[in-house]
Amino acid sequence: PSSKLPDIGTSIFTTMSALANELQAINLSQGFPDFNCPEPLIQLVNKYMLAGHNQYAPTAGVPQLRDKISIKTEKIYGYRPDPNTEVTVTTGATEALFAAVTAIVKPGDEVVVLEPCYDSYAPAIRLSGGVPIYVPLALPDFHVDWDAVRRRVSSRTKAIIINTPHNPTGAVMTMQDLEALASLTDGTDIVVISDEVYEHMVFDGKKHVSALQLHALRERSFVISSFGKTYHTTGWKLGYAIAPAALTNELRKMHQFLTFCSVTPLQLAVAEFMEEEHHYRTLPDFYQQKRDYFCQLLQPSRFEFTPSSGTYFQLVKYEAISQENDVEFAKRLTAEIGVAAIPVSVFYHDKADNKYLRLCFAKSNNTLEAAAKRLVKL
Amino acid sequence: PSSKLPDIGTSIFTTMSALANELQAINLSQGFPDFNCPEPLIQLVNKYMLAGHNQYAPTAGVPQLRDKISIKTEKIYGYRPDPNTEVTVTTGATEALFAAVTAIVKPGDEVVVLEPCYDSYAPAIRLSGGVPIYVPLALPDFHVDWDAVRRRVSSRTKAIIINTPHNPTGAVMTMQDLEALASLTDGTDIVVISDEVYEHMVFDGKKHVSALQLHALRERSFVISSFGKTYHTTGWKLGYAIAPAALTNELRKMHQFLTFCSVTPLQLAVAEFMEEEHHYRTLPDFYQQKRDYFCQLLQPSRFEFTPSSGTYFQLVKYEAISQENDVEFAKRLTAEIGVAAIPVSVFYHDKADNKYLRLCFAKSNNTLEAAAKRLVKL
Ligand SMILES: CSCCC(=O)C(=O)O
Ligand SMILES: CSCCC(=O)C(=O)O
Repeated sequence: PSSKLPDIGTSIFTTMSALANELQAINLSQGFPDFNCPEPLIQLVNKYMLAGHNQYAPTAGVPQLRDKISIKTEKIYGYRPDPNTEVTVTTGATEALFAAVTAIVKPGDEVVVLEPCYDSYAPAIRLSGGVPIYVPLALPDFHVDWDAVRRRVSSRTKAIIINTPHNPTGAVMTMQDLEALASLTDGTDIVVISDEVYEHMVFDGKKHVSALQLHALRERSFVISSFGKTYHTTGWKLGYAIAPAALTNELRKMHQFLTFCSVTPLQLAVAEFMEEEHHYRTLPDFYQQKRDYFCQLLQPSRFEFTPSSGTYFQLVKYEAISQENDVEFAKRLTAEIGVAAIPVSVFYHDKADNKYLRLCFAKSNNTLEAAAKRLVKL
Repeated sequence: PSSKLPDIGTSIFTTMSALANELQAINLSQGFPDFNCPEPLIQLVNKYMLAGHNQYAPTAGVPQLRDKISIKTEKIYGYRPDPNTEVTVTTGATEALFAAVTAIVKPGDEVVVLEPCYDSYAPAIRLSGGVPIYVPLALPDFHVDWDAVRRRVSSRTKAIIINTPHNPTGAVMTMQDLEALASLTDGTDIVVISDEVYEHMVFDGKKHVSALQLHALRERSFVISSFGKTYHTTGWKLGYAIAPAALTNELRKMHQFLTFCSVTPLQLAVAEFMEEEHHYRTLPDFYQQKRDYFCQLLQPSRFEFTPSSGTYFQLVKYEAISQENDVEFAKRLTAEIGVAAIPVSVFYHDKADNKYLRLCFAKSNNTLEAAAKRLVKL
């Protein structure tokens, strides 16, 4: 029987992490911290498990967590979503994205996607019979060319997916970007899916701008975030989506049949831990120090780079080192130098090789030092 | 914008559990235990979390858990699936079902579904553009009428979904059923999706029969099970799918984009806990005692019932008590008597009222006593 996603092979994240493990390389490929989450958060999980909170949560999420999300959202973005009708806890941001796309995309619908982008956007669109319309981010700094977006928008456009801070490039949008998007979608039924999972990793005094901050965007957007990124728990699969009630209603139908609910004791633990704002308030600084340290260590190398503006990823260009394509180069780097990275071509639908690698700096300083020591030798 | 699932409202499980909470009724509606999972299992989670296993698992599942699933499967069903190519850990059985359906169903494909059935089968089929073909289970004992199934199978049939032990009726299939299915699908490309999440709850000396036990079925089947049901952890969202390599390959593509992976420390804890076979070996007895106790308590009531053969559900007919339709009756029961149950019409696409309620007996004896005390008054 023929495949519904014939061109999808093993995910690059799986491939590179497995290769890194097999070859005992330092793994800067898949995006996850190599340090642990806060121990008090773990003890809260234990507390709720021992107290018997191990059965289904309400499909929308436990009320305590939806409340906390709502309160936090108002504090940082000035808009308080209704926890009952506008906030949904999901099984990671990946499920939130899949559910949002599946909720609204019908056969023949077009969805604008800015490239490079996370590898789950297009498959989700295609599985609903939709057509991804790819608009490249503009070099050298991977900003959005809104005129180019406007040229690809038509009456067939169902949705536009944006992502800021941006994986894999580290670019962050400005309020001008969001205003351009608001004006472009004004008077249309276009839905915005805003992937903001790295919202707390923005550097150099910049601030994350959220689609929730503009009334005109908020009323047409799914805004998606991730507890995994913020609390160093990528393996807990907890994220959420904020959207107007009508969109939330459709998203929840999908969520109900995709996973029904997310893990109950983890939801309760995160809800209680969120009372402590210190963690996410200090996260930009925490990751900026990692970025600064890593960039300083890489300075003597032959990689070219501009320090990342957001996310826990650093893009580096390797043209001065090799003319291999990025997948080959990344594999050789893992095998010969012992550092695993993500080749950026995998974030393009045509696998365009631009001689970029993505390095994850969500690592202990020891790991960053060991990796840089190998990378500067090239 | 129009809905992709216009006829889907709030799930009956959500509705009834919320109503039960609101009215402080005894909740025998949604299927979950009111007692806790084994404490050693919780301490294993804590151990793995403290040891730092809080980041992404491999998308197929942690190798330790896939190995344990493979070994256990051989022990109980005589077939050892390859953990690398035939076993996938999923975010609950719900996600496994959605992924299996989405992996194979294309627009226009027909999927045979036996009614009554779990409420996620049809939406999953429809979201892939497929057409559910409903075949009713035959009264009074809800057995499969294989001739009726054969009459609805055609060249358009992509898959048949079966479920044994059966939710909501408690019916269990026999080896003759599986042989009928094998003969019916022989020489076709029909895929079988076998929902066996209640595999360890079969009573009266009967034995669960798995699609894995027949070579002819195994080679065309997704067999889906659930750790939530077996380990009293429905809120942990851990399940799995066993299928031949080609089908597993397609399922994993879906899983990658649906949730990417399931919760890492929970996978590791369950893998270690599975070394202890005692838990699942004694589960049939454990639940048979609950069933027997509950049925004995209900004996003086005016409900009519045959003791359930499997699952943790007991079907009861209320015709002698009321002529209301089952949804009204279930709501009134919750409000006036203080016992929440599931009206069985919600498991039929046309919401056919057959005057049945489903009661979950995965409850402490105290809860069962308190509920029965109220139910015998009717
Ligand atoms: C879900 S695996 C990929 C993790 C991630 O977000 C990334 O590395 O880009
Ligand atoms: C996922 S909520 C429904 C739980 C269940 O399997 C049931 O009650 O039938």
